[in-house]
Amino acid sequence: MRILLSKKNQELIESTNLEEVRTSIGEEDTLIWVDLFRDSVDESRMVLTEIFKFHALSVDDALVEMHVPKIDDWGDYLYMSVIAINPGQPLDDIDKSIELDIFIGKNYIVTYHQQELISVDLVWEKILRNESNLQRGSKFIIYQIIDELANEYMKMIEFLDMGVEEIEDIVLEKPDKKLLVEIFSIKRSLLNLRRIIAPQREVLNKLSRGDFSIVTQKEQMYFRDVYDHLVRVHEIIESLRDIVSGTLDTYLSVVNNRLSNIMKTLTVITTLFMPLSFLTGFFGMNFFAASNLLNRWSGVTSFYVVMAIMISIPLDMFLWMRRRDWM
Amino acid sequence: MRILLSKKNQELIESTNLEEVRTSIGEEDTLIWVDLFRDSVDESRMVLTEIFKFHALSVDDALVEMHVPKIDDWGDYLYMSVIAINPGQPLDDIDKSIELDIFIGKNYIVTYHQQELISVDLVWEKILRNESNLQRGSKFIIYQIIDELANEYMKMIEFLDMGVEEIEDIVLEKPDKKLLVEIFSIKRSLLNLRRIIAPQREVLNKLSRGDFSIVTQKEQMYFRDVYDHLVRVHEIIESLRDIVSGTLDTYLSVVNNRLSNIMKTLTVITTLFMPLSFLTGFFGMNFFAASNLLNRWSGVTSFYVVMAIMISIPLDMFLWMRRRDWM
Amino acid sequence: MRILLSKKNQELIESTNLEEVRTSIGEEDTLIWVDLFRDSVDESRMVLTEIFKFHALSVDDALVEMHVPKIDDWGDYLYMSVIAINPGQPLDDIDKSIELDIFIGKNYIVTYHQQELISVDLVWEKILRNESNLQRGSKFIIYQIIDELANEYMKMIEFLDMGVEEIEDIVLEKPDKKLLVEIFSIKRSLLNLRRIIAPQREVLNKLSRGDFSIVTQKEQMYFRDVYDHLVRVHEIIESLRDIVSGTLDTYLSVVNNRLSNIMKTLTVITTLFMPLSFLTGFFGMNFFAASNLLNRWSGVTSFYVVMAIMISIPLDMFLWMRRRDWM
Amino acid sequence: MRILLSKKNQELIESTNLEEVRTSIGEEDTLIWVDLFRDSVDESRMVLTEIFKFHALSVDDALVEMHVPKIDDWGDYLYMSVIAINPGQPLDDIDKSIELDIFIGKNYIVTYHQQELISVDLVWEKILRNESNLQRGSKFIIYQIIDELANEYMKMIEFLDMGVEEIEDIVLEKPDKKLLVEIFSIKRSLLNLRRIIAPQREVLNKLSRGDFSIVTQKEQMYFRDVYDHLVRVHEIIESLRDIVSGTLDTYLSVVNNRLSNIMKTLTVITTLFMPLSFLTGFFGMNFFAASNLLNRWSGVTSFYVVMAIMISIPLDMFLWMRRRDWM
Amino acid sequence: MRILLSKKNQELIESTNLEEVRTSIGEEDTLIWVDLFRDSVDESRMVLTEIFKFHALSVDDALVEMHVPKIDDWGDYLYMSVIAINPGQPLDDIDKSIELDIFIGKNYIVTYHQQELISVDLVWEKILRNESNLQRGSKFIIYQIIDELANEYMKMIEFLDMGVEEIEDIVLEKPDKKLLVEIFSIKRSLLNLRRIIAPQREVLNKLSRGDFSIVTQKEQMYFRDVYDHLVRVHEIIESLRDIVSGTLDTYLSVVNNRLSNIMKTLTVITTLFMPLSFLTGFFGMNFFAASNLLNRWSGVTSFYVVMAIMISIPLDMFLWMRRRDWM
Repeated sequence: MRILLSKKNQELIESTNLEEVRTSIGEEDTLIWVDLFRDSVDESRMVLTEIFKFHALSVDDALVEMHVPKIDDWGDYLYMSVIAINPGQPLDDIDKSIELDIFIGKNYIVTYHQQELISVDLVWEKILRNESNLQRGSKFIIYQIIDELANEYMKMIEFLDMGVEEIEDIVLEKPDKKLLVEIFSIKRSLLNLRRIIAPQREVLNKLSRGDFSIVTQKEQMYFRDVYDHLVRVHEIIESLRDIVSGTLDTYLSVVNNRLSNIMKTLTVITTLFMPLSFLTGFFGMNFFAASNLLNRWSGVTSFYVVMAIMISIPLDMFLWMRRRDWM
Repeated sequence: MRILLSKKNQELIESTNLEEVRTSIGEEDTLIWVDLFRDSVDESRMVLTEIFKFHALSVDDALVEMHVPKIDDWGDYLYMSVIAINPGQPLDDIDKSIELDIFIGKNYIVTYHQQELISVDLVWEKILRNESNLQRGSKFIIYQIIDELANEYMKMIEFLDMGVEEIEDIVLEKPDKKLLVEIFSIKRSLLNLRRIIAPQREVLNKLSRGDFSIVTQKEQMYFRDVYDHLVRVHEIIESLRDIVSGTLDTYLSVVNNRLSNIMKTLTVITTLFMPLSFLTGFFGMNFFAASNLLNRWSGVTSFYVVMAIMISIPLDMFLWMRRRDWM
Repeated sequence: MRILLSKKNQELIESTNLEEVRTSIGEEDTLIWVDLFRDSVDESRMVLTEIFKFHALSVDDALVEMHVPKIDDWGDYLYMSVIAINPGQPLDDIDKSIELDIFIGKNYIVTYHQQELISVDLVWEKILRNESNLQRGSKFIIYQIIDELANEYMKMIEFLDMGVEEIEDIVLEKPDKKLLVEIFSIKRSLLNLRRIIAPQREVLNKLSRGDFSIVTQKEQMYFRDVYDHLVRVHEIIESLRDIVSGTLDTYLSVVNNRLSNIMKTLTVITTLFMPLSFLTGFFGMNFFAASNLLNRWSGVTSFYVVMAIMISIPLDMFLWMRRRDWM
Repeated sequence: MRILLSKKNQELIESTNLEEVRTSIGEEDTLIWVDLFRDSVDESRMVLTEIFKFHALSVDDALVEMHVPKIDDWGDYLYMSVIAINPGQPLDDIDKSIELDIFIGKNYIVTYHQQELISVDLVWEKILRNESNLQRGSKFIIYQIIDELANEYMKMIEFLDMGVEEIEDIVLEKPDKKLLVEIFSIKRSLLNLRRIIAPQREVLNKLSRGDFSIVTQKEQMYFRDVYDHLVRVHEIIESLRDIVSGTLDTYLSVVNNRLSNIMKTLTVITTLFMPLSFLTGFFGMNFFAASNLLNRWSGVTSFYVVMAIMISIPLDMFLWMRRRDWM
Repeated sequence: MRILLSKKNQELIESTNLEEVRTSIGEEDTLIWVDLFRDSVDESRMVLTEIFKFHALSVDDALVEMHVPKIDDWGDYLYMSVIAINPGQPLDDIDKSIELDIFIGKNYIVTYHQQELISVDLVWEKILRNESNLQRGSKFIIYQIIDELANEYMKMIEFLDMGVEEIEDIVLEKPDKKLLVEIFSIKRSLLNLRRIIAPQREVLNKLSRGDFSIVTQKEQMYFRDVYDHLVRVHEIIESLRDIVSGTLDTYLSVVNNRLSNIMKTLTVITTLFMPLSFLTGFFGMNFFAASNLLNRWSGVTSFYVVMAIMISIPLDMFLWMRRRDWM
């Protein structure tokens, strides 16, 4: 747990002393940010219930990880739940995302998360470095945090986009099982990301639309800006999903095409040699005795020539197939 | 049939005496819960119609199993129908779910279900253990029951999620008919679950939105909470359905890929040996008499060597195919 | 054409006398039901236009079979068009459904259909048997007819459901062209049924929502009940459509799987025997003269053994293939 | 260009005299229909701009072929654009449809189309034959024209429906490339038709809903009727599209099925003869000298019998394959 | 940077002098157009922030390339972002489109774009040539620019349409990998174009609907016109997407069909020659000595005939296959 306390005409304090928070909540011109992080659930519940007097239901929503972004208006304060990701974290499993629960009052915010969150740390340090960031009030801090989150989404999207482009390059040349695994992994990440973004976008829409009396019109502008970001992220996700589905179609088409080519080769070879083999078989039957007129054909020299051909055929075939990427 | 009767300043009574219910319905400060369970349809109809005077249409809706969640406002009381599942019950057939019909009045609730329902039993016992659960009135009991139902859905979802993950692990390695059966079984369960959840969510939305005068604003909060649960359940279902569809695509891709590889092997083998066989056939024709210069090649030693090779080829092939999972 | 005429304090009359209808339309406490059935279009037009004075457009809508459920408010009366099916009638062609056109006034209803309709007959006979069915007025008759229609839909759905289950059982075991035909027939029936139900549901929604002043609040309850029925029917249809699409996917998967297995067998056999055949061919070439040291191998006894093997191989193969359902 | 001019107490005039139009526009009890047809764009622009004083934007919309149905309210007049088709015209290309631009004033209508339109001609002649058709005012003429258009759509739909049924009959029996071409041609026609109908339906919805003060409530009834027609046409299109997609699935399933059968035959034949051929090869090797004990087998009589068999096998095979539709 | 300055009773000035802009902003009867183009981001920020005093958030939106069309009302001015394309530019990558940011005040517009934009240049030159284009105010300039953009979209659509038609012609005749590449390239272009058009359409809808007090009703007409254009463009895109998906289906069907034909040929050939080969093998076994009765068959003449046949078979096959497009 860590606490930021800013009082009028006083310097910014970073502490862990809850008592000071308790006494300062009601005061005007005070801004408090309590960041509950890796505290035990019981401890956190105590802080939320006893010090801030939040409603039991909203506290439950915060402490149980639901991974479902939402925003509730509880009169004096807003309860808000967003899903964050840390940089470089893959999203093949939704449980790897981190739930960030935020309580926003007029002069305080409480953030709760069970894992470290780079975005929260960044804003925390920014405020420590430059106190003026606190001047604009509690909602502006929230704006900054959510803006950082949106940036993380953007980076992840760009990372996935690169993956998709790579797949698109490879799929026409070398469609194999490994590519299939990659396609499905990206597909799943996009699915998870979309599941996170869509309701989050709705939360920001509510914040920017003026549904909550606690948010001033000027603050709505900022949330509107993040909302636009999220709309864009969502659109790119949809677009990437379309493209990934397309690559899967391409994959199947290319595999099918290759299968068709392989079968053509097989059929050409079979069609050529089956009749020839029949002919040789026909004249190999014992109805006819071997004549002695063409004995040179079955002489030792011929034999060595034939042997040479027999050895060269598999070698040539091997090289030809390698050139066609069959092996 | 079992009855819970709580009067002001009196102890909680659990009985089966309908007469007491009849006389207490109008009294203030009384709370009655009648649980109709495994009673004959006629008996139940009698209770609902004659004692509680419910409208014939709502009684019909309760007694005929429609398996379609809904909520109707009948002025004095709400009629509500939800679909429950018992723990551990598979959902490959929608008829395995249990309809729970609930009548909610100001100071009574009537629940009707044709099969035992663990969720109802749990709440019943909780109340018997701790009477204070009745203090918050009839709607709070309903909230507790529906919350238990939502927990059951959650558990089933988690069970299905595990099944999906298992399938995802296997599909790339060993796509066979058994897996196909499993995929389609999970698909069907998800389909059934979605069919149950979607309208139920709507019922709870109505309860939490303040459509019914009988539900106070404070009670709406609780229903809103279950509603959020169901929204999440629904989203996970949709997401799992997407993933299951994805595994089916993977299945087809992998089978196609394998088919392509098998055909490649066939084509390689055929392409290699067809020309060779033609050559041997050519020189086996009776146009040429056998010369005696290379007789060692057709001697007894050769024969035994050839026999050894002929026996070893199928064995080697068998081992090679086994290694490639063909057998 | 047949007419039911119920006047106050008089017995119920079943007649075909139009004049009596003409004179009774304006009277209070009278209830008239005219069922136009297999009458010529001209005759029907005369009745609708001259006796009941319906607007030309609504009469046109009734007489021309559009097979599109709708409801129009013409002030004094409602014009309503629903699609009915008779029991046991397959629905592979939408034209096999029957349009039932209904005009509902305060004290009369006119039904028009070109083919016999069991649902209408049932209600007609019910009224003849028990006059009290008329007490509740014209809209209650309509409710009873539509309720019967909904029952027919329900029965058809159950029939299709059985078909779907049967298909699901067979598809994994024996996917053949016959099954394909069945799948597409059920698919088409569901498509047609959905096309009928969806707008009909909307018609009943309007009736139950209080859009029409002619329908009292109490009567809305009843229409609401049929509406709920139709909602359920529609949901089951959607769900069955999903399952049928699933079986088609299964079908393709199973066929693909089988193809893959067949190709594997082919490849195994070819891979095994091609090298062996090459070897035998190699030593069958005329470069080498036959030695006399192993003559027992080509003796008469060997010949008969070989002949026995050659006859037994196809027989064994045939049995093996039969066991694998290839023939 | 042709003009219909109907003044009070005067006979109907069909002329090409624009001056009379110019002077009559403002008069009451006059009805003018100007049909601009195959006139040059400049001439038409002059008529629309200078005589009727239409706004430049609406004139542009009319003269440039956009093929996008819409309706705009310009105060004194409505500008409306619908897409028509002539009977028997295929719709595989959207450009083969004809744009009909209509300006509707209180006492005039102006129609503009670049190609002959049977529907417009029909209404024109109907009015010439029976002047009373003009009594009901300008909107009634529009209703008649649009009703004719809707009939053309209906006929085209029926034509396409027949095509779909034909395809359904053939697809299970004889799925070939020609059928594929037909399926895709119908698919495209349906796509084009839907693209035309959907916005047109919206135009009529607006006309029938009372969005425009120029349209009386009684006239709305008529447009409502055409609207219902278009709704039905749209529904049938959607339904046909579903069925056509179904036939494509069937096509693929049947082709897949057939492929599977062909491969089975190949595998059966190969599996039978490969081991046999190996055996014959084995005893054809030169390790063993030919014995003379079974010389009758390689005698001349045998030879002729074998020759007969060798000739009959391909013939039999050919007949067998023909019977299985392979050739 | 370039500036157009039009003052009352003065000639139009084209300059780069910012000071004159600064002093003229407040004046009535002045119209200013500042086109920021290829200026550094810092310079542009200075102009937007210091001279025009735009809000920091809107300036950020303009300077950071988001490629997401939107419109924001900032009271005195509108901020608008549209996506433009230059003629002949392929759209396989969304980043090749150009963001055009527009600030619209009562008597000024500011346009900002990082790359040259032909549409902007065209309008600029049009105004220079004919000053009267400025008479209609700032919104009319915007209308002209957006109209030019819409024309570019239209041209691109027509180009893509041609590509689709070409593909449709080829797909049935010659489905190969190159075509696949082309299909997916067009698919991607359509996807990108749709992603650009859809929100842009929404922007114009807002402009034409009267959401902004700055836009007069007459000006709304013009924006409505472009809106209709964009609706049409969007519809054609959707329709082309459907057709492209269709061609992919055709592609797969045709490839599948061809595969089926190839396999048929293979099976026919194998089925014909396998039994024949067995027969020849049978009589080639060393159980039977060669008789001397048919020695002419294995004579030198026969040999040359057989050699001729053996050489002609591959040649004939080659020609036959070429005719069937296999090679």
